Amino acid sequence: MDEFDRYRAAMNEKLLGSNHLGIKRFFALDTQAYEEGALDKRTKELLGLVASLVLRCDDCITYHVKQCAGIGVTRDEFLDAFNVALVVGGSITIPHLRRAIDRVDQVLNETDHEAATPHNHD
Amino acid sequence: MDEFDRYRAAMNEKLLGSNHLGIKRFFALDTQAYEEGALDKRTKELLGLVASLVLRCDDCITYHVKQCAGIGVTRDEFLDAFNVALVVGGSITIPHLRRAIDRVDQVLNETDHEAATPHNHD
Amino acid sequence: MDEFDRYRAAMNEKLLGSNHLGIKRFFALDTQAYEEGALDKRTKELLGLVASLVLRCDDCITYHVKQCAGIGVTRDEFLDAFNVALVVGGSITIPHLRRAIDRVDQVLNETDHEAATPHNHD
Amino acid sequence: MDEFDRYRAAMNEKLLGSNHLGIKRFFALDTQAYEEGALDKRTKELLGLVASLVLRCDDCITYHVKQCAGIGVTRDEFLDAFNVALVVGGSITIPHLRRAIDRVDQVLNETDHEAATPHNHD
Amino acid sequence: MDEFDRYRAAMNEKLLGSNHLGIKRFFALDTQAYEEGALDKRTKELLGLVASLVLRCDDCITYHVKQCAGIGVTRDEFLDAFNVALVVGGSITIPHLRRAIDRVDQVLNETDHEAATPHNHD
Amino acid sequence: MDEFDRYRAAMNEKLLGSNHLGIKRFFALDTQAYEEGALDKRTKELLGLVASLVLRCDDCITYHVKQCAGIGVTRDEFLDAFNVALVVGGSITIPHLRRAIDRVDQVLNETDHEAATPHNHD
Repeated sequence: MDEFDRYRAAMNEKLLGSNHLGIKRFFALDTQAYEEGALDKRTKELLGLVASLVLRCDDCITYHVKQCAGIGVTRDEFLDAFNVALVVGGSITIPHLRRAIDRVDQVLNETDHEAATPHNHD
Repeated sequence: MDEFDRYRAAMNEKLLGSNHLGIKRFFALDTQAYEEGALDKRTKELLGLVASLVLRCDDCITYHVKQCAGIGVTRDEFLDAFNVALVVGGSITIPHLRRAIDRVDQVLNETDHEAATPHNHD
Repeated sequence: MDEFDRYRAAMNEKLLGSNHLGIKRFFALDTQAYEEGALDKRTKELLGLVASLVLRCDDCITYHVKQCAGIGVTRDEFLDAFNVALVVGGSITIPHLRRAIDRVDQVLNETDHEAATPHNHD
Repeated sequence: MDEFDRYRAAMNEKLLGSNHLGIKRFFALDTQAYEEGALDKRTKELLGLVASLVLRCDDCITYHVKQCAGIGVTRDEFLDAFNVALVVGGSITIPHLRRAIDRVDQVLNETDHEAATPHNHD
Repeated sequence: MDEFDRYRAAMNEKLLGSNHLGIKRFFALDTQAYEEGALDKRTKELLGLVASLVLRCDDCITYHVKQCAGIGVTRDEFLDAFNVALVVGGSITIPHLRRAIDRVDQVLNETDHEAATPHNHD
Repeated sequence: MDEFDRYRAAMNEKLLGSNHLGIKRFFALDTQAYEEGALDKRTKELLGLVASLVLRCDDCITYHVKQCAGIGVTRDEFLDAFNVALVVGGSITIPHLRRAIDRVDQVLNETDHEAATPHNHD
């Protein structure tokens, strides 16, 4: 997933560095859409995850899995969201669910590992 | 929306009355996917709504708008969910958002009206 | 469905009458794709029907339902094809399945009616 | 198409009148995307039309047909754009092409009629 | 394709081992949808293949290519099914058809090879 | 991108070498759709690019990026076309835009390099 992050950052840089006003504004809207509002951030990230699953976009799924894990979505909650996506979107989503559960376990393991490692900054 | 409900019920009857085991089981899974679980019913109905918006299925949107309104989703929360769908799915979702906000206002008005009407059952 | 047939014919006429060579050739390819070949016509019409269901195109579904019924696909076979589409494409296909079973019953009833009516051409 | 315009305007009003900042900004971006830039307005409207055809959104198609006609896209150019959409998107786009050619002829006829009518403003 | 099979099995194990009842039941429905019924297994696998092609899901295509080859679908029949998918789904399916014909030839070659190799179990 | 070209050519060869008349004719139609007509080649290639972006087909995007660059589409024009695709198709197109801008820069750099290299054939 490090390679995923690196490529993503480098190409976003290319897109945004081109100074196309429309593209820059769209990226801003995209960020703002998941901020706390009438619905809370957690619900919105889950909405983004399920939308990405039914539209079958692996990179979008990876991104929202990380965001969700970062705000405490549990493995059981991920599975419950996957189930909604599976029923709505059908078996065609299954290859994406396979990659998604893989990402979930990578991200949750990293989080556990970090939590278990004492951070001695002093 | 009464005509929508009538046609929906009559055709579901046709589909389920045909006793195809696979179809019957799928309909059962569909119902169960939105029941209280690791995620609560309210979150799941919002997931169903946003999935329906990005997949651009008007009948599915109408159904989930009703379900959401029935469990207290407010107009501002609907708009916040619409915004996630709009950013993820793009301008191609706008005609569906137009019909969706129409449904939301119909359903919320009915709910208000019912709440304002004293139910004298005695 | 008569209105459907009339509009379809009139607009195909407009499209083909415009003498755009690419469009005319595409329409010819479309017709030829369902002709007897390595796979028989019946299998190909079922393939066209299921492809139309998972891509959620009501007009295409109506067309292939008629073609299938015309070459003897039974109600149980339609339901079995619907079930494949439902599992592959998910609950988002259900509104289309409702309209599809409606079309199937209209078309099969017409066929029965015609079969039951003695054709005295002499 | 008057009813289409009326409903479209009324529901856009509902969506924008709700003062959701994200939705308002998206609508602004949508308008700006078709303004003169590195590519001219005419090319961009044709891009919007073909994108709408392959994504099979009738309302979006109607909107872009009107915009294109308003800046002088001819019937032959429409057909050439339809052909690209047909080849890219397949026969599943045909029902949308039928409705699109109908819209094109309505819009071009209106334009002709207006051109033929002397505007005596004095 | 061995790596494909290994990852698929390991991740299905993760998904099913999580004991989410909805996901387990969906997987069961998915298996049952292709079993002998009103339509035979061979027709159903071809339906699954064409649905996967028009929905452009490479992993699903690979799976159904294997299933089809295992029940005797010939190269000419595969090509005839590909042609239906190509006409329905358009040129956007071509990259998937390229990978699909590659899979077909791998699978059919393996099958030939196995058939040509005497199995001396004594 | 050399590997992309090689695999593409080899598999097209497999598909076309199979002598399925429908598939061969479709490939011919696909080529013809982008030839000079009522709309010029440049506009048509841009239409093909944006259709590929909103349908999220990376191989199709790579192909049309090359074609566009070959007939002089500039980096700013690419970005303007990307912006239309982004607004129409939503954030779900962003991972494809990242890969697309990468392709654009590779192709434009190669073109620059070739232009800067004197071709001494004598």
